[in-house]
Amino acid sequence: MRIVLLSGGGGGARFARGLASVLAPGELTVIGNVGDDLEILGLHVSPDLDSLLYALAGLIDTDRGWGRADESWNALESAKSWGAPDWFRLGDRDIGLHLVRAEALRRGAPLSDVTADLIRRAGVASAILPATDDRLRTFVTTSAGRFAFQEWFVGRRHEDDVDGVEYEGLESARAAPGALDAIAAADAILLAPSNPYLSIGPILAVSDIRAAIEGRSARSIAVSPLVGGAAVTGPLGRMLSRMAGGTTPDHVARRYSGLIDVLVVDEADAPATAEVELVVTQTLMRDFDSERRLAQAALETACV
Amino acid sequence: MRIVLLSGGGGGARFARGLASVLAPGELTVIGNVGDDLEILGLHVSPDLDSLLYALAGLIDTDRGWGRADESWNALESAKSWGAPDWFRLGDRDIGLHLVRAEALRRGAPLSDVTADLIRRAGVASAILPATDDRLRTFVTTSAGRFAFQEWFVGRRHEDDVDGVEYEGLESARAAPGALDAIAAADAILLAPSNPYLSIGPILAVSDIRAAIEGRSARSIAVSPLVGGAAVTGPLGRMLSRMAGGTTPDHVARRYSGLIDVLVVDEADAPATAEVELVVTQTLMRDFDSERRLAQAALETACV
Repeated sequence: MRIVLLSGGGGGARFARGLASVLAPGELTVIGNVGDDLEILGLHVSPDLDSLLYALAGLIDTDRGWGRADESWNALESAKSWGAPDWFRLGDRDIGLHLVRAEALRRGAPLSDVTADLIRRAGVASAILPATDDRLRTFVTTSAGRFAFQEWFVGRRHEDDVDGVEYEGLESARAAPGALDAIAAADAILLAPSNPYLSIGPILAVSDIRAAIEGRSARSIAVSPLVGGAAVTGPLGRMLSRMAGGTTPDHVARRYSGLIDVLVVDEADAPATAEVELVVTQTLMRDFDSERRLAQAALETACV
Repeated sequence: MRIVLLSGGGGGARFARGLASVLAPGELTVIGNVGDDLEILGLHVSPDLDSLLYALAGLIDTDRGWGRADESWNALESAKSWGAPDWFRLGDRDIGLHLVRAEALRRGAPLSDVTADLIRRAGVASAILPATDDRLRTFVTTSAGRFAFQEWFVGRRHEDDVDGVEYEGLESARAAPGALDAIAAADAILLAPSNPYLSIGPILAVSDIRAAIEGRSARSIAVSPLVGGAAVTGPLGRMLSRMAGGTTPDHVARRYSGLIDVLVVDEADAPATAEVELVVTQTLMRDFDSERRLAQAALETACV
């Protein structure tokens, strides 16, 4: 089987880990969000790609849900003492990766090459592709003004209500090498239980990725990030209510209009109706077993 | 009193700490070597400036003699796992400073401004100036070829015998702002017990610094880095033997011909004769008290 997954960080990375554990090595290609990338302290940070890498490599801090296990924070503490901002948390082991990536990018390597090299060095059997090697950045318009994604999400703790989401660079962004081929060759396309606006949206903002999925031959299945009409973590519940008018499965499905054939929803959100086929299961990923079960359920849906 | 000290790292930083402890706040200006600066992992590292900063700020690891106390090494270990070289040891807290400095330099700030800001943030009362804001780098020609300083010193453990030392960039390097004024206004000029070729040499390679010291009105006093004809640490003994023909006080004094009036030597190197006045004392800096005593002895020599 060849499976393509569109994913953000957090829940997407857990779902990717579940998929990788039930698929054979090499069967999974993850296309990751880069809309929340940022440059800070001269480092290029790709939080979602890194969550995917760390999750698939078994390096992620499972309690925190991001960054590396067994982490220390001395470099950031020191940088702060020398006048640097410390609102974006970077651990020492994490910084080691960012140093290597920033150096490679400055030498002119595309992000996809750098990511492939990291994957190889981590011994991860799945592919992780950035949606694009071009600069694509998420901005939110809120009740308190317009902010770069991380400034709002981390810096302002995503407390301001969001009225709109924009992806700077979407006009010129092209799919990273391999992404369109992977979609074309896929036996199923999956959209992870990630935020449709903030995590999956920036991937679908890359016009040739969107076109490839619109013109798909394989089935496309999204896993709803809601459980009982609420986001497991993060601001999605408030965003859907304010921007889409509600948090039912149909409100999620409409975010992916024309892009999915099936929406996998949690038992707590059933019964429901939507413009696509709904599949009901337990979607909450509490542990490794539930990640595997959700991955298995999504794959079974794909292969109907 | 206004004292100018020319210094490398290591012994120079200890001597600077001794001087700072016996002088009033603000009386000491240190002009530091930048010939052993390097770019690694996208960071600009100034080992000698940092040893001075860490020593004067009380942050240095006194056992190791370089880098910060209470240090961890997770970022470098991680970077290595992602394919980066790890031959140059950078601790996590140290990296915090390098991140801040590299970012400021990329924004176009001169090294002297960045250093002044670090000094201010550390609450250090002495001034530390890089010899130059221009790129000046030490290269050694050895029996095994020509190497950039750190490649030979750290990477090859300074095992290859040195036949010559060159300072790339010396033609265009100008003294950093404040250095010439400090020399002109000084009541005494001191040369730290640092390696004349590798630590003090790159400072004196800056032509207007050399000219300012040659045309000095104040007395200029060097402290010999030798004890009993041998370097306390490092390759100086072998270098002097091979390149200067011996390791007596006079062999040291001739490295500074026209630039010093006095050479402070250790009791183990007396009696001796040299082309300049010799002052004999105990020069080995075993602890904070001996640093203070040596500083006091050098200052008394200056004020004769």
